[in-house]
Amino acid sequence: MTIKDIARLSRYSVSTVSRALNDHPDINQDTKKKILKIARDNNFVPNSNAIRLKAFEENSVVIIVKGEFNLFFSSLIEHLQFYIEKSGFRGFTNYIHTSENEIQTAIRVCAEQKPKGIVFLGGDIENFRKDFERINIPCVLCTAISLELDYPNLSCISADDLAGGAMAIKFLLEKGHRNIGIIGGDISTECSCQLRYEGCLKGFEEYGLSFDTDLYEYSSFDFNDSYNSVKRLIKRHPEITAIFSMSDVMAIGASTALMDMGYSVPEDISVIGFDGIEISKFFKPKITTFIQPQDKIAKKSIELLTSMINGKKPARVLLQTKLIERESVVEHMEVSNVSVQF
Amino acid sequence: MTIKDIARLSRYSVSTVSRALNDHPDINQDTKKKILKIARDNNFVPNSNAIRLKAFEENSVVIIVKGEFNLFFSSLIEHLQFYIEKSGFRGFTNYIHTSENEIQTAIRVCAEQKPKGIVFLGGDIENFRKDFERINIPCVLCTAISLELDYPNLSCISADDLAGGAMAIKFLLEKGHRNIGIIGGDISTECSCQLRYEGCLKGFEEYGLSFDTDLYEYSSFDFNDSYNSVKRLIKRHPEITAIFSMSDVMAIGASTALMDMGYSVPEDISVIGFDGIEISKFFKPKITTFIQPQDKIAKKSIELLTSMINGKKPARVLLQTKLIERESVVEHMEVSNVSVQF
Repeated sequence: MTIKDIARLSRYSVSTVSRALNDHPDINQDTKKKILKIARDNNFVPNSNAIRLKAFEENSVVIIVKGEFNLFFSSLIEHLQFYIEKSGFRGFTNYIHTSENEIQTAIRVCAEQKPKGIVFLGGDIENFRKDFERINIPCVLCTAISLELDYPNLSCISADDLAGGAMAIKFLLEKGHRNIGIIGGDISTECSCQLRYEGCLKGFEEYGLSFDTDLYEYSSFDFNDSYNSVKRLIKRHPEITAIFSMSDVMAIGASTALMDMGYSVPEDISVIGFDGIEISKFFKPKITTFIQPQDKIAKKSIELLTSMINGKKPARVLLQTKLIERESVVEHMEVSNVSVQF
Repeated sequence: MTIKDIARLSRYSVSTVSRALNDHPDINQDTKKKILKIARDNNFVPNSNAIRLKAFEENSVVIIVKGEFNLFFSSLIEHLQFYIEKSGFRGFTNYIHTSENEIQTAIRVCAEQKPKGIVFLGGDIENFRKDFERINIPCVLCTAISLELDYPNLSCISADDLAGGAMAIKFLLEKGHRNIGIIGGDISTECSCQLRYEGCLKGFEEYGLSFDTDLYEYSSFDFNDSYNSVKRLIKRHPEITAIFSMSDVMAIGASTALMDMGYSVPEDISVIGFDGIEISKFFKPKITTFIQPQDKIAKKSIELLTSMINGKKPARVLLQTKLIERESVVEHMEVSNVSVQF
């Protein structure tokens, strides 16, 4: 496979192909992208380091994933990769630990790899606020939105966590539950959990009720952690008849703990989740949950990224979640303490 | 952060640091690795493309993951990334579809990115047999072993699928089950499912029994597929009292289907899985399964890779699986059809 073959296959002249492969400024961007795609699809190996480096840089989009293993993210990454490849880029995924700084990682990635764009998954809005200005390539912050993050090269996309939290609580209230517990992540910093929590408070307010914060129990997005978290919560508050879990993983961990404690789910205690990951359908009882439109989030993320790469302005996109009623929530029946006299 | 800072932090001379950053041949490899790690940890940005490219190449190990989203792989990738970083390399993950050729992808990655090594996860042994010789950097084929793959730059590592399959069947037979169904992947090509299946046949043989192949039902490694697969199997063979599922995901999909059909698991039908993924503990009933030593597989994979990078010979490593008894298998009680006369 030579440069002439690429020219023939792409129907461009050898000099155009050469300009494309050498990242010459005097070339139409769409033309270049087409030529590079053909070169890539045919395993064309350019014969100089400089060309190779350019071709590599031309094409890469990096996903930086922060945090522990997370079923929602794992599946979202797959969708993101799909749309990255579909847009003619090569996707690389970089996993970093919760303790690491995603902006520092991005700076290093930019210096070493010079990607065309970065998608951040997870991440600490505080870190973005402090240091994001040091990054000057198009970026998308996925599953988090902050109005304070106002940069010409940063788009944000997220499910509407505030509305989702409110809907979850209102759904349980409408089913007659009044003793509602919540398990979720850290609500002390600006993140999706904080927004879902604020939504919950709004949900109670709309019913003229208030939420006793002692009914909130922290859990990470982890089966084991949520398993232990709900045990603590129920020991403190045995009057609970329904639990909102801020992720499906937590809802599954919580349901398993409740069943291990001898409760029936949902007959004794209803459980509602959030995310709509696949496993929530393959659990008994099947988890009633709010679906985040995963495919749409991934597709729109890459659309936002490519449009910024092509010189367009950034945007903030909020997507609605959708309630899916399955088996894990039932109506609460008031059992009155009537003493029967014979 | 300058080259002098790196020299101070690493306690090597400026000229040694310079040689390390410039990939000069006249330097001890361990020294170079240490210096590059310090440079990376301190976000040192070399000021020329050549150095940048060298630093990038020096450091990268690529994981090529083939196949659909798979909970066992997702978690294994996390472990692999951890050990790659711990060895002083940067890990990149490349996802490709089942229909793509992993060797072609590897050739492209080698040409563009010049990684130090590649870890293949999933993959078709047939493709390796045909084209692997075109790859000349150290590689590890993870979770598959074939004696026919005899290359100086390819190590293989896998759980002992043959022994695992045999143990699963013997475990069910010892519990008194005689009508045993199996759901699993494609057993017509050389892969872990074929080995597990052969193990199953051996297990029956050791008990002087043979397996009726009509009790085997195909499923991909997917909740939904296994859900439907087990429904077909039980319709055809309502006499089944126990099912061996070749993955935990399949065991969960199967159990959910059985419960949706009105069976109790394990009281009516026992289910045993394979893999030992985390979710298998957070399902009711908790899945009895064979644990693949995920952390050990990841650790050993990277050890094999780095030892080949340092000029050592390749190896084949087989790791044993371990039975974990939980809740999804019970003893089969023979119910005799005695007509009672008064």
